[in-house]
Amino acid sequence: MMKHTGCCATLWQYFFEYSTPRILVIRSLKVGTLNRITQALVIAYIIGYVCVLKKGYQDTDTVLSSVTTKVKGIALTNTTDMGLRIWDVADYVIPPQEENSFFVLTNLVITLNQTQSHCPEQKNTGFDCTSDRDCKIGLRDTRGNGVQTGRCVNYSAEVKTCEVWAWCPLELDVDPPDPPMLGDAENFTVLIKNSIRYPKFNFNKRNILPHVNKSYLEQCVFNRTTDPDCPIFRFKDMVTEANEDFQIMAVHGGVMGVQISWECDLDMPSSWCVPKYTFRRLDNKDPVNNVAPGYNFRFAKYYKNGDNQETRTLIKGYGIRFDVMVFGQAGRFNIVPTLLNVGAGLALLGLVTVVCDWIVLTCMTRKTIYKEQKYSYVDDFHLLPDEEP
Amino acid sequence: MMKHTGCCATLWQYFFEYSTPRILVIRSLKVGTLNRITQALVIAYIIGYVCVLKKGYQDTDTVLSSVTTKVKGIALTNTTDMGLRIWDVADYVIPPQEENSFFVLTNLVITLNQTQSHCPEQKNTGFDCTSDRDCKIGLRDTRGNGVQTGRCVNYSAEVKTCEVWAWCPLELDVDPPDPPMLGDAENFTVLIKNSIRYPKFNFNKRNILPHVNKSYLEQCVFNRTTDPDCPIFRFKDMVTEANEDFQIMAVHGGVMGVQISWECDLDMPSSWCVPKYTFRRLDNKDPVNNVAPGYNFRFAKYYKNGDNQETRTLIKGYGIRFDVMVFGQAGRFNIVPTLLNVGAGLALLGLVTVVCDWIVLTCMTRKTIYKEQKYSYVDDFHLLPDEEP
Amino acid sequence: MMKHTGCCATLWQYFFEYSTPRILVIRSLKVGTLNRITQALVIAYIIGYVCVLKKGYQDTDTVLSSVTTKVKGIALTNTTDMGLRIWDVADYVIPPQEENSFFVLTNLVITLNQTQSHCPEQKNTGFDCTSDRDCKIGLRDTRGNGVQTGRCVNYSAEVKTCEVWAWCPLELDVDPPDPPMLGDAENFTVLIKNSIRYPKFNFNKRNILPHVNKSYLEQCVFNRTTDPDCPIFRFKDMVTEANEDFQIMAVHGGVMGVQISWECDLDMPSSWCVPKYTFRRLDNKDPVNNVAPGYNFRFAKYYKNGDNQETRTLIKGYGIRFDVMVFGQAGRFNIVPTLLNVGAGLALLGLVTVVCDWIVLTCMTRKTIYKEQKYSYVDDFHLLPDEEP
Repeated sequence: MMKHTGCCATLWQYFFEYSTPRILVIRSLKVGTLNRITQALVIAYIIGYVCVLKKGYQDTDTVLSSVTTKVKGIALTNTTDMGLRIWDVADYVIPPQEENSFFVLTNLVITLNQTQSHCPEQKNTGFDCTSDRDCKIGLRDTRGNGVQTGRCVNYSAEVKTCEVWAWCPLELDVDPPDPPMLGDAENFTVLIKNSIRYPKFNFNKRNILPHVNKSYLEQCVFNRTTDPDCPIFRFKDMVTEANEDFQIMAVHGGVMGVQISWECDLDMPSSWCVPKYTFRRLDNKDPVNNVAPGYNFRFAKYYKNGDNQETRTLIKGYGIRFDVMVFGQAGRFNIVPTLLNVGAGLALLGLVTVVCDWIVLTCMTRKTIYKEQKYSYVDDFHLLPDEEP
Repeated sequence: MMKHTGCCATLWQYFFEYSTPRILVIRSLKVGTLNRITQALVIAYIIGYVCVLKKGYQDTDTVLSSVTTKVKGIALTNTTDMGLRIWDVADYVIPPQEENSFFVLTNLVITLNQTQSHCPEQKNTGFDCTSDRDCKIGLRDTRGNGVQTGRCVNYSAEVKTCEVWAWCPLELDVDPPDPPMLGDAENFTVLIKNSIRYPKFNFNKRNILPHVNKSYLEQCVFNRTTDPDCPIFRFKDMVTEANEDFQIMAVHGGVMGVQISWECDLDMPSSWCVPKYTFRRLDNKDPVNNVAPGYNFRFAKYYKNGDNQETRTLIKGYGIRFDVMVFGQAGRFNIVPTLLNVGAGLALLGLVTVVCDWIVLTCMTRKTIYKEQKYSYVDDFHLLPDEEP
Repeated sequence: MMKHTGCCATLWQYFFEYSTPRILVIRSLKVGTLNRITQALVIAYIIGYVCVLKKGYQDTDTVLSSVTTKVKGIALTNTTDMGLRIWDVADYVIPPQEENSFFVLTNLVITLNQTQSHCPEQKNTGFDCTSDRDCKIGLRDTRGNGVQTGRCVNYSAEVKTCEVWAWCPLELDVDPPDPPMLGDAENFTVLIKNSIRYPKFNFNKRNILPHVNKSYLEQCVFNRTTDPDCPIFRFKDMVTEANEDFQIMAVHGGVMGVQISWECDLDMPSSWCVPKYTFRRLDNKDPVNNVAPGYNFRFAKYYKNGDNQETRTLIKGYGIRFDVMVFGQAGRFNIVPTLLNVGAGLALLGLVTVVCDWIVLTCMTRKTIYKEQKYSYVDDFHLLPDEEP
């Protein structure tokens, strides 16, 4: 082709070489159509599904969130041992503040004036006895309420049970009151303040939207239809949205999920990025397999009486724990995922040729002609026994 | 081509066939250069951007973290109703321990010796009255502090308000003291212990780095320039780094984010994997739209006086909640993402040919020659009306 | 080729064109084998590794979880200053409820009957003095326990220290008791209720599996071999599984991670999706670099004595915080990731040709023949000086 054969010249020449595959063009109704259709399908998939639906051209980031809550409401109870009693935030929110969660007392079993002393164990809990021999001194059983003193004493006129060293009197093993003592809690409201951040895009927003002003915030209550932007939620509404009955749930307590989802397409105006609230019951209350239902825990208030002896009020508190779960993904155009998808897409377009070729060269009537045109052969089979070059 | 046509022989033969596309090499300054440039671009993108910048060759894992905190410091307050009073950790950290967060009391409105009884409602909160008729017995309003008894009593010499059954005396609806009562808190320090884990790579590390010894830890305070590795933080420094004024923030409270980022390239020595601390105010304090600012909550201490009647001290606590947010990503070489990116890259290289071909076969002067060389045709259009084969 | 040259007709014709590359088939033992082997490798990688091992055909989702815990057990302590004392849940779980975590007191340093008054500072903590001149009035030092009154008083017969206004008597700066006071805690048990959700697949499950019934749940204790599905864990077992000794850990406290992993392949029956429990100590106890070991915090119980003066019991509580970490990934077949991987795979198959071509056209003996067949040339170098067309 050329005289000059100096190495660098060759390189130089090579540099300006452009290799492009030699193409066989088959002009045929069948094949053509087939070809175009498959192409169309692949392209439709890439454009329509990957790009438009899955937003394959976007880089995504997950949300960073901070939540604060403020409960409001008052409940009134009237019991024999406590008399008329008012409950306010400081009484029924335990602990007074948590990070992404708050607990509201709805029902309780209270045991007043417990002191460190000894008293007979509960009956029918495996600690009934007839003589001291039945009680093992120092025994502490997980089912029991204290450490046995080894003596067998009168629980009632009929029953004798082992004596235990414990906080006496013992808490009675009873079902929680029904209707729940703090049934009023259904009208309590909670203000949920949530500010989020998408660090990758340096995008901040809070769930109190710009158009929400002080006066509105003082009287609004969230309502999916009328007040969808109000961050104040009535307990009963939340529980109802989760298809639960508040009064029933309040008896044994439970765990509610307040889900705030921030799905944002940051290629759109940021005002379109708004929180969506959904409510779900998190603890299982499956009737057929209802093991250990509800949610409760024990806590105590400690006092010292006149002669400096410690007493406590033990409360087995049933209530609803609201877990505020903030999640979401923001997407914004980015070149890397775009090209990754385009690349994979092109590779798929390669499939089209494979498919069509196969059909053309096997099914078509004039396949031999196509074959001859498409393929040329170099044989190198002098090595193979059953061949002649 | 060959005599033998036994099926298996054909297969056998087919097995040893190697198909490679037939190439047309165009030796041309223009095309060649164009071709090389586009290639260079694509390769530069793949190597430079995807691999080097985005570390496309790495498999990534997100961090698992555990945080414990320990606050130190003492504050002194002097008020009329409490007199001289010292505050230590057990007083101002509420609750005493949390998982990834801690709250420090900086300001408070205190109401001493509340008991369950009745007293007149606050004035100017919608409960002013002239006669009992204005008060609805049993009414519990979210704005109110108790349950109305139905009587209208003297709030002061001039004003009469509805009487409520509540914790009396009621908390006065006043602004928090300014300057804040526990302004001394700015000098409190907190030791943050954070140990992290990247499960996929079985990599553990803690923010107390190996070279940090006991003696240093006892006297050091974090300083971005002089002590960047000291895990003890002065409150004022943290707030200042977030461009806030501690004394102002302390009045109404707020939420601070202590962000610990662990971005680790585990292909590098693990000693390069160190935490980065940043501080940010999480609650919104936007002056133009400042709805419900700050952070506060109510809690109470319960007492029993001589005649066994329960009294409580209600505290409306304003303070700063520090949320410790640990995040980060570790990457280590892995073959799957590498090949995924290489694959996508090669597919993009395919684009080059497409682009060049288009230019060559449309813009170039000698395009017809190229066309003839590149394409060969098989016609199958006897079906089409306007054709003759 | 054709008479008719109307634009639309051309288009129409173009539409039915099918372009397929012209292929050179080389029939050769060496090349063929080489070719097949490389192909086999790539395909094996795609199928075997990406698809089977990494489940590249699945779309994945991360877990949403909700955890509640209930601790059971009783401990007995006998100290000089408190006498015989029983500890139950309400006493040793602080705070009474948390979101994904619970703390159990295992050891404590208790300071009874503190009041707001003044007393001498600890000795040997830098506050020893000989005269009032050594004490600065109003000085509050982070190492100190109060605010100095400026007077130098007798700490003991020998030592004088600065007087401070503080909660007096001051807590003694002593090591925690060893053996731990609540060593009994090793037999405590905790019921962990965990319900999870994979939102993308709308899949819910809880760690109390369907076959677990009430009676079993009342007496079972988790055991990796005999009771792997029992959600009740004995503290000692958990700590032992983390290769720690409970009694040693209990002295200074620590942080335990209860890891519940929900790795689910939702293409399989959902009953295969079960939690896996693992236990790990989260706080560092590296012997060579053991700075600030263990986990403890201070909290107080507040009382009012007869003459309405506030006193408190300060407790420096050492204990084990159990962080329940729920993580996991669910996968279910999805077309997008599948095609993405297939696409990338095909692109890699393209590599095969590149590699083989290179070998064929450089190493093979008959390379010239292949070259001639594979390449055809069009020269356009009349521009280049050292060329003649």
